[in-house]
Amino acid sequence: MPTVHTPSVESLAQGVLSGETRSIARAITLVESRAPERLALLERLFPHTGRAFKLGITGAPGAGKSTLTYQLIPRLKARGYRVGVLAVDPTSPFSGGAILGDRIRFDDALEGVYIRSLASRGSIGGLSRGVPPAIRVLEAAGYDLILIETVGAGQLQVDVRFVADTVVLALVPEAGDVVQAMKAGIIEIADIYIINKADREGATRMRLDLRNALELGGKPKGWNPPIALTEALHGKGIDELIAFIEEHKQYQQQSGGWEARRLQQIEWELQSLIHDALEQQAQATTRQLFNAETLQAVLQGAENPFPKIRAWRVRENP
Amino acid sequence: MPTVHTPSVESLAQGVLSGETRSIARAITLVESRAPERLALLERLFPHTGRAFKLGITGAPGAGKSTLTYQLIPRLKARGYRVGVLAVDPTSPFSGGAILGDRIRFDDALEGVYIRSLASRGSIGGLSRGVPPAIRVLEAAGYDLILIETVGAGQLQVDVRFVADTVVLALVPEAGDVVQAMKAGIIEIADIYIINKADREGATRMRLDLRNALELGGKPKGWNPPIALTEALHGKGIDELIAFIEEHKQYQQQSGGWEARRLQQIEWELQSLIHDALEQQAQATTRQLFNAETLQAVLQGAENPFPKIRAWRVRENP
Repeated sequence: MPTVHTPSVESLAQGVLSGETRSIARAITLVESRAPERLALLERLFPHTGRAFKLGITGAPGAGKSTLTYQLIPRLKARGYRVGVLAVDPTSPFSGGAILGDRIRFDDALEGVYIRSLASRGSIGGLSRGVPPAIRVLEAAGYDLILIETVGAGQLQVDVRFVADTVVLALVPEAGDVVQAMKAGIIEIADIYIINKADREGATRMRLDLRNALELGGKPKGWNPPIALTEALHGKGIDELIAFIEEHKQYQQQSGGWEARRLQQIEWELQSLIHDALEQQAQATTRQLFNAETLQAVLQGAENPFPKIRAWRVRENP
Repeated sequence: MPTVHTPSVESLAQGVLSGETRSIARAITLVESRAPERLALLERLFPHTGRAFKLGITGAPGAGKSTLTYQLIPRLKARGYRVGVLAVDPTSPFSGGAILGDRIRFDDALEGVYIRSLASRGSIGGLSRGVPPAIRVLEAAGYDLILIETVGAGQLQVDVRFVADTVVLALVPEAGDVVQAMKAGIIEIADIYIINKADREGATRMRLDLRNALELGGKPKGWNPPIALTEALHGKGIDELIAFIEEHKQYQQQSGGWEARRLQQIEWELQSLIHDALEQQAQATTRQLFNAETLQAVLQGAENPFPKIRAWRVRENP
């Protein structure tokens, strides 16, 4: 198929590549959408992508993820990174949906930082399908560290692995928090753990519980996830956290884990694009097989809907 | 297409229809799976389904959903309901994944109650795709009240609407909880609100905040969601909650909302079956378009993957 770039896609791409904020915003809106031109834009930007370091920050609402992000940003900038932030957390003050006033002041610390919230709807397996293409847009615009803030609950926390090179899980000292996390199966997904609000009672105890929980399955081979105690609100422990992040990055690059993980990321990204196209098809097919009248008949028990689905499956998936 | 029921599907259906626990368990496992026979089973059971009342209980981990469920069950039984429970909450003691001992004793209160946990993975839009077919199995087995316990976080809470006739959202008095829920856009989805652990400080205040939040968008027309204060652990407020549930059920039946909602449920159910078939196709298509070698080339930047996806879309979705 010949590749034709419409002028608008081309000029948008030019804007992104020269780092124009408005073009970046428009490009992310486009790649988040289902418009067919989004693939043309991604195709055009692709050669300029794939090189950023992607840092995931996840945890339950109230764990202090946004404050952590806010504290990390100036320190990462000081290390020479150009930082972009994608907030997939609907409760994050970064995501603009805040209604009762943000506690975070948008001051000098955030200068030069591109911040964007993404819808958490329309997802494959919980994580916004907009994340991987938005990452590509930011990469093409020259951002080399992309911070992905995502609210934690089962699915969402698990899936941040498929977009981030390093995942930081923020917990707070609270009775049962480690147990809840273990039950939800999210304890193993992080590369680095934070016990935030560490001035609260029970922080040291929690670190012990967490360490024990992590070692339940036997001593880890390879990377042994560190646990940092932080008080994000007062900037305490953040430097230690950054040291852990850099360490994990280096460890992965040396161990070959980096490549395996990035291959997985790419597979997930492509699969989610294909999935997305099929989802549109699912809606269309449902409406085609079952119109309002048929649905009514199904509701009344007058029509059994399953033979139709079986017949359709046979036709569609031989 | 002629409908052929294999003997095993037929005997499984017979077992379900006569209410045998083992058959119910096997049938739910089958309909949760992707085996093609699950459609044959659903087709066979369909005439015996569609009549149960479906009650969704949702809320964040720690809100006391399981304790509420445990308190509701004997009272619902006393009203003549045959109760089935589907736990889609990975942190629920009902879901068997508990590792540190359940606080709930499985005693007489649960006799005759069928309890089953469902995986929250493999979902369309966050809610387990196993829920609607598992509901049908329980209906066919004679259960007429199905309680769906689901952990709350954005997506999951929103989607419980598509399977439940009445949704109860459990909150606990905690600073910012109402605000968090509003930000996450989950405040509008419930039909009944509970402030559980109402002996804690701030419960009355929270009720006020919640009432204000609910009325932000103007006075509701029709159903005005009530707010119950409960202490599930001590059985307080549960009778009031049941009264609200019955009231909402009657309101819907009289207002016609019941039918509209059930039409939506059926559409969602059928769409999720179709979606599911397409998801399998997405995985297969991804592997077909991008093998290990190609993915490696994409990782290295040597192959641009987007033209292939564009070409495929054109072929698949003309």
